[in-house]
Amino acid sequence: MENLNNIVNTGLRGVTVANTKISHVDSDAGKLIYRGYLITDLAEKTCFEEVVNLLLFEKLPNPEELRQLRTHLAAQRAIPKSLVASLKTCPADSLPMDILQAAIPLLANNDPGAAELTLEKSIDTAIRLIAEIPTIVCAWHRIRNGMDPVPPDPDLNHAANFLYMLTGEVPDEQTARFFDICLVLHAEHSFNASTFSARQVASTRAHMYAAISAAVGSLSGALHGGANTRVMRMLKEIDESGDMDEYISRVLNSGGKIMGLGHAVYKNGDPRAKILAPMSKALGQSIGETRWYDLSVLLEEKTKALFKAKKGLDIYPNVDFYSASVYYSMGIPMDLFTPVFAVSRIAGWAAHVMEEQFAGASDKPALYRPSSAYIGDYCGPAECPFVAMDNR
Amino acid sequence: MENLNNIVNTGLRGVTVANTKISHVDSDAGKLIYRGYLITDLAEKTCFEEVVNLLLFEKLPNPEELRQLRTHLAAQRAIPKSLVASLKTCPADSLPMDILQAAIPLLANNDPGAAELTLEKSIDTAIRLIAEIPTIVCAWHRIRNGMDPVPPDPDLNHAANFLYMLTGEVPDEQTARFFDICLVLHAEHSFNASTFSARQVASTRAHMYAAISAAVGSLSGALHGGANTRVMRMLKEIDESGDMDEYISRVLNSGGKIMGLGHAVYKNGDPRAKILAPMSKALGQSIGETRWYDLSVLLEEKTKALFKAKKGLDIYPNVDFYSASVYYSMGIPMDLFTPVFAVSRIAGWAAHVMEEQFAGASDKPALYRPSSAYIGDYCGPAECPFVAMDNR
Repeated sequence: MENLNNIVNTGLRGVTVANTKISHVDSDAGKLIYRGYLITDLAEKTCFEEVVNLLLFEKLPNPEELRQLRTHLAAQRAIPKSLVASLKTCPADSLPMDILQAAIPLLANNDPGAAELTLEKSIDTAIRLIAEIPTIVCAWHRIRNGMDPVPPDPDLNHAANFLYMLTGEVPDEQTARFFDICLVLHAEHSFNASTFSARQVASTRAHMYAAISAAVGSLSGALHGGANTRVMRMLKEIDESGDMDEYISRVLNSGGKIMGLGHAVYKNGDPRAKILAPMSKALGQSIGETRWYDLSVLLEEKTKALFKAKKGLDIYPNVDFYSASVYYSMGIPMDLFTPVFAVSRIAGWAAHVMEEQFAGASDKPALYRPSSAYIGDYCGPAECPFVAMDNR
Repeated sequence: MENLNNIVNTGLRGVTVANTKISHVDSDAGKLIYRGYLITDLAEKTCFEEVVNLLLFEKLPNPEELRQLRTHLAAQRAIPKSLVASLKTCPADSLPMDILQAAIPLLANNDPGAAELTLEKSIDTAIRLIAEIPTIVCAWHRIRNGMDPVPPDPDLNHAANFLYMLTGEVPDEQTARFFDICLVLHAEHSFNASTFSARQVASTRAHMYAAISAAVGSLSGALHGGANTRVMRMLKEIDESGDMDEYISRVLNSGGKIMGLGHAVYKNGDPRAKILAPMSKALGQSIGETRWYDLSVLLEEKTKALFKAKKGLDIYPNVDFYSASVYYSMGIPMDLFTPVFAVSRIAGWAAHVMEEQFAGASDKPALYRPSSAYIGDYCGPAECPFVAMDNR
């Protein structure tokens, strides 16, 4: 094998670890494609359930298939009573992502076939997880506020039911549709860190619950799913201080980044941000509070101009930048932004776990087991004589 | 960057992803080294707590340091009451690895500083996890059998306390010492799948609990930590059928493997197996039941001879081969073999998470975010025209 030392400590950037049929990020063209379809088409013309069908079954559903999937998902929304009892034992200030990471292996306890590794079972588990994760997120939010969970409503679609279980009120049509679009936009993004975690755990032949719980842990990191919450915190800080220019120069001069601007992959703009920005504006107008959208636009413009002037580079908002104000305007608590990311991304995670488990033998990656370079220098490059206790 | 396409779908085998000072696997020489020290020396001359000190603090402790670490660990062994209450809500047939993966993020709920990313806090979390994971494993085993958990005994060392919490009885000296050696042997093994999962989750700046829970999920896979349980099941199957030759030829002829023989990394023998084999023998003699050791030796000999004759290759037992009969002879239930692996490996995982979090800037890997090759062919290599619902 050729020398691969030039990838040491680069976090595998640019290293193609596997083939995938699930999605494609065209970084130059600024396109995101789920199984052949452009995200711009999917966001405009489909709902989350259609995207679930596309990701899991490799096709957009016809009306009958969509009806069946909706029925199947709705039937799986309730979570086990033992899980609710378990959530009630948790301290009220538990972090929602910790709760979600814990709850997923607990779901496995109530699924007698959890450990089966067949395509049929993995589809069943995927549907269960897509249906149950929203219920867990909402149940925990209610429980931590001393309220009973709101039982799911099978007459509502996936997006509307989430907002209903969160607040106890059926959302208006625009809010439900916008949330649905958010779920479509966040459902899949190739080998990002959490998806890679899920695939990596699945590659050991651990069951899907174990893999998805690991993905939730990965998503909880500040560099990954935590970004949209940090965008909102930043907007609030700027709003409170009233001095955006001071904020920008302070952050950039201390080597920091303006959250939500720039993307490791999309160099010419994230197509999802372009869909989210007008939603943020429309939602702000609906609730009579455009402050967060306005601040976002101004922050984008100022930072863009500064980058162009200083570095000759263009910088664009990523998916987190406008989703922050979208979620905030919908009344979703800030510390649930990352769990909401999981509510959507579970569709992509499940598709990737299945690809890891069942892709044809020639495509199937072995268990991920990289090498490392030992640079221990305790007494030379490799080994030391043992030192007995008396001589330490 | 050079073309790295030759690593697609190889599970990163042979790809050096990071530098590490923690351990070194010398596959040709059959050596395992923790921070400069040979595993053979460590197993013979140290206890698990000394190895914890070595892995976390980069040195073997002097007597005072060892005393302090023991005190610190013993003080952290109790698990939160809310976690015990939560375990009591779980169905009795829940898989112990699912329980452990869930319990770790629940521990975070009771650690007010869980999300802090400082070296001091990570050391604190590491000590907590090393101390609490054994308690979780034992508490769950008691609870699923309708018994109350046995509170930890601060006068017992780490190994003896585990067996005490599991059975309610203080183990004899030989059993306690042998279990201690098992913990030393399993504590660390470079970038194996679960350790890579832990590092990968930590690279997103998720907290240590999230990373370790993911590692437990990875370890639960049949190709990874599940192997020692499968060795024991195999020994029982051979014992019941009474026909080892038939078993071997049936498994090998159907393309299967004899569990516990051969290792992806050690081509000339796993140094840990050589330490475990005599322990299996001695334990068998102590309890007056050498059947599992005898079967193991015979199985090793027969398979070795067959491999040599058919493929001209040598095959050696790995760490799982004799640890199966060791644990079984100690009275550890078979489905706890993998949790026991975690009870030990948490020391290595924690050291790796800290290396990921705090290694000097030049050594620190970025967030692991590999690339993938899109091979979707839904209507060509990349994108399709959208198909409206009526035309599907």
